[in-house]
Amino acid sequence: MELKIKKLRLYAGKPVCMIHEDTAKSMSLHVGNRVSIKKNKKELISVVDTVQGIIRRNEIGVSEEILLFLSVKDKDFVNVTLSERPHSIELIKKKLNGSKLTRQEIREIIFNIANNSLTEVEVAFFITAVYVKDMDIDETTYLIEAMVDSGNKINLPGKIVDKHSIGGVAGNRTTPIIVSICAAAGLIMPKTSSRAITSAAGTADSIETMAKVDFSIPDIEKIIKKTNACFVWGGALGLAPVDDKIIKIEKIANIDSTPQLLASILSKKISVGSKYILIDIPCGNSAKVSNNEAKELAKKFLLLGKKFGLKIEVIKTDGSEPIGNGIGPALEMKDVISVLSRDKSCPKDLEEKSLGLAGKILELAEVVNKGSGKKLAIEILESKKAYKKFEEILHAQKGKIIALPYAKFSKDIYAKKDLIIKHIDNKIANQLARIAGCPEDKFAGVYLHKKKGDRVKKQDKLFTIYSESKEKLEHANRYCNLWIKKMVI
Amino acid sequence: MELKIKKLRLYAGKPVCMIHEDTAKSMSLHVGNRVSIKKNKKELISVVDTVQGIIRRNEIGVSEEILLFLSVKDKDFVNVTLSERPHSIELIKKKLNGSKLTRQEIREIIFNIANNSLTEVEVAFFITAVYVKDMDIDETTYLIEAMVDSGNKINLPGKIVDKHSIGGVAGNRTTPIIVSICAAAGLIMPKTSSRAITSAAGTADSIETMAKVDFSIPDIEKIIKKTNACFVWGGALGLAPVDDKIIKIEKIANIDSTPQLLASILSKKISVGSKYILIDIPCGNSAKVSNNEAKELAKKFLLLGKKFGLKIEVIKTDGSEPIGNGIGPALEMKDVISVLSRDKSCPKDLEEKSLGLAGKILELAEVVNKGSGKKLAIEILESKKAYKKFEEILHAQKGKIIALPYAKFSKDIYAKKDLIIKHIDNKIANQLARIAGCPEDKFAGVYLHKKKGDRVKKQDKLFTIYSESKEKLEHANRYCNLWIKKMVI
Repeated sequence: MELKIKKLRLYAGKPVCMIHEDTAKSMSLHVGNRVSIKKNKKELISVVDTVQGIIRRNEIGVSEEILLFLSVKDKDFVNVTLSERPHSIELIKKKLNGSKLTRQEIREIIFNIANNSLTEVEVAFFITAVYVKDMDIDETTYLIEAMVDSGNKINLPGKIVDKHSIGGVAGNRTTPIIVSICAAAGLIMPKTSSRAITSAAGTADSIETMAKVDFSIPDIEKIIKKTNACFVWGGALGLAPVDDKIIKIEKIANIDSTPQLLASILSKKISVGSKYILIDIPCGNSAKVSNNEAKELAKKFLLLGKKFGLKIEVIKTDGSEPIGNGIGPALEMKDVISVLSRDKSCPKDLEEKSLGLAGKILELAEVVNKGSGKKLAIEILESKKAYKKFEEILHAQKGKIIALPYAKFSKDIYAKKDLIIKHIDNKIANQLARIAGCPEDKFAGVYLHKKKGDRVKKQDKLFTIYSESKEKLEHANRYCNLWIKKMVI
Repeated sequence: MELKIKKLRLYAGKPVCMIHEDTAKSMSLHVGNRVSIKKNKKELISVVDTVQGIIRRNEIGVSEEILLFLSVKDKDFVNVTLSERPHSIELIKKKLNGSKLTRQEIREIIFNIANNSLTEVEVAFFITAVYVKDMDIDETTYLIEAMVDSGNKINLPGKIVDKHSIGGVAGNRTTPIIVSICAAAGLIMPKTSSRAITSAAGTADSIETMAKVDFSIPDIEKIIKKTNACFVWGGALGLAPVDDKIIKIEKIANIDSTPQLLASILSKKISVGSKYILIDIPCGNSAKVSNNEAKELAKKFLLLGKKFGLKIEVIKTDGSEPIGNGIGPALEMKDVISVLSRDKSCPKDLEEKSLGLAGKILELAEVVNKGSGKKLAIEILESKKAYKKFEEILHAQKGKIIALPYAKFSKDIYAKKDLIIKHIDNKIANQLARIAGCPEDKFAGVYLHKKKGDRVKKQDKLFTIYSESKEKLEHANRYCNLWIKKMVI
């Protein structure tokens, strides 16, 4: 049936459409049914809500997400038909019951997620199935292939390198520093990041405090041609777009399965043509993975690297303590700037880790011989070439280095007695920053005044919570009261 | 923040609210955040969409589901605040990781589902956790308790009996016949049903073709006082309302876990005060459960019966073939009427099964001695006392026995060669009826002209598919072409 688009100026975070109850009846559609909306060979599936007002009988009210996907505007006509219940729901159930999926079956699920044929609830079923029943290397390979093939690709000349941390360490904003060093050394580093999953900020969230991160693929090619590198949000590019949809739902319950983790990382790297990839696996107490899990994960990365013809190196780093002082998009960015600008009081752990990883990449891509990478990295950082490179990239991304503000409300947390800090828990610190509003509220978060090994006196400031609303600050404070004894030992 | 209700006349199948982008900013709310909406001590949690038009800055646009739950109307003021991420998400993850949940933890999850603090995606995570990791008898007991306590109860005098089939058999609409017989024998049978889960119709879906099934608790008490029985949809009553929310999401992927099945059945029975309960477990080839699974399930029912002080009897019936000729709400109702009205051509399998089960209930509730139940049931059916009782109940529910129409479009499926039917597959027959539009389209479904053992000639009609739209009929036909060789052997 041909229906006229009514732009609702509605942002629902997913495609949402509404039609008049009478139109629904005439199409024998019910609330919760799926419809296919077509325009010029583009097709999107959406779940239907019915209304009695707002929308006229020959209209379909759509959220901004639909306008964008179909490239349609107000008053355009689109073809709307009832959509079949996708067969991939049965495949998801098959996985949930413990069976392996074939290449074709995984492809079907992933392409159905791509065109929105599966609702968020169904994607949640898929995520849980993979989380609980796991996938072997073959299934993971198919998952990566399908994610890459259902999205766009970037073609770049030169030695393309990348790094990825599997995350879980609070703070730990090494990427902007590493990219600046490597790009200054002549390597091509098209850094696409997703939003934070289980941590308080992702690189995209942090960079966004100073520059744009949403660019088209041609824009990115220009930025990289000019500067050798970029920091962009992957979601806007349609590189393995299914990964972003999955991550959005994983975030809800902080569910992060190994196959999905591997696929998420490698599909993005393959889509931008990276050949030399350094994987950082922080492990230890309160990190995402234990030492043994890290070993298992490293094995899988190397196996998948071979399958896809990539030069992958995996290093385990100490992930038992937060790195840097700030936790939250802007607070982490402040740390990054202090390291790059060679501020004497910059967080030394962040500096040291960034130099180590940058050195490894310089070696992996054969810029220098094995053993000489870190020396070159130090040289580039100390000479402020990295700072200049960072500035250059921000400029190319329509931004610049600025003094970042803090969130509106804050609360200092003080030590209740003299102590020496033995440990700060990553998971609790991250969770605290999230409750304070991260990563959506960019200036919110937690600033650590003290770190492991520091001697603290009664009434010394331990950390400060920043938040954009009194409610969130209160929620964070309540959480803090509950957990502080486990957070800071 | 106080916001003015703007009624959107929107039906989304779940609570949905929208606020202006500027209002969202001032409250530091983001798309997908949860808000608490309060009015007169009632509280509902909803996920926020933001808009630029339609809704003014001091307004909150709400779906009909919210108006109903909060008993508010257009232009009322409500209190809207950011809602904390519920702790029960962590508990769901705990279950997903294989841990047992305590009474308190299960209570927290169920009460959070009740007041909508958990989104559909989170409920999907809970459903999968229970499906994959199972629950022991203690956890199932807590689940039932929490479901009962988070809902309303009905208090009735007399010997309250109930029956329940765990389903999976296509057709099989025994309930209206059994209830009519038992009520005619003087037993109290407050039959509350959910909508169809994995089958093409539930009792509520079928009864709705001739009478109302949505009543308030005082209404039901009146209906039962007059007639001894009722056939109502449980969802409208708020008896174990969480069960309905869970079923709605389970339906999406046909995921039906044992603990949830036990809790769903028993929580409803306990909420209406049933003491004598007959559980029918159809098993065998193409039924929901195998013989062994049926044994396990029976054991659990009896254990739970003891915990809650109920007299439960479980019988296994042959569930390998569809029962009756019609599959779909109205088509099954036609079979029921033909049995009750003593039509000579009524489906004998449906009649026989109904009499057997009714007899068991008469014995369980000690109306007659063991061994004499079926005789009394036959007497009541043959004398048309059951038909009159059914008519009486329909009248009390503002309906009457009518000649039901068929869906607009139909397609006959013919035998391609001479054969004797060895088996008709329940799962495929059900799925076919669902694709044709069941249970939402009440007159859609499948009518079986032939059953197991029938001799069929080439070009004889095997069955007819009914559908309300050409598209659905086409989808059903496509499915039929794919599966007919497995469906009819």
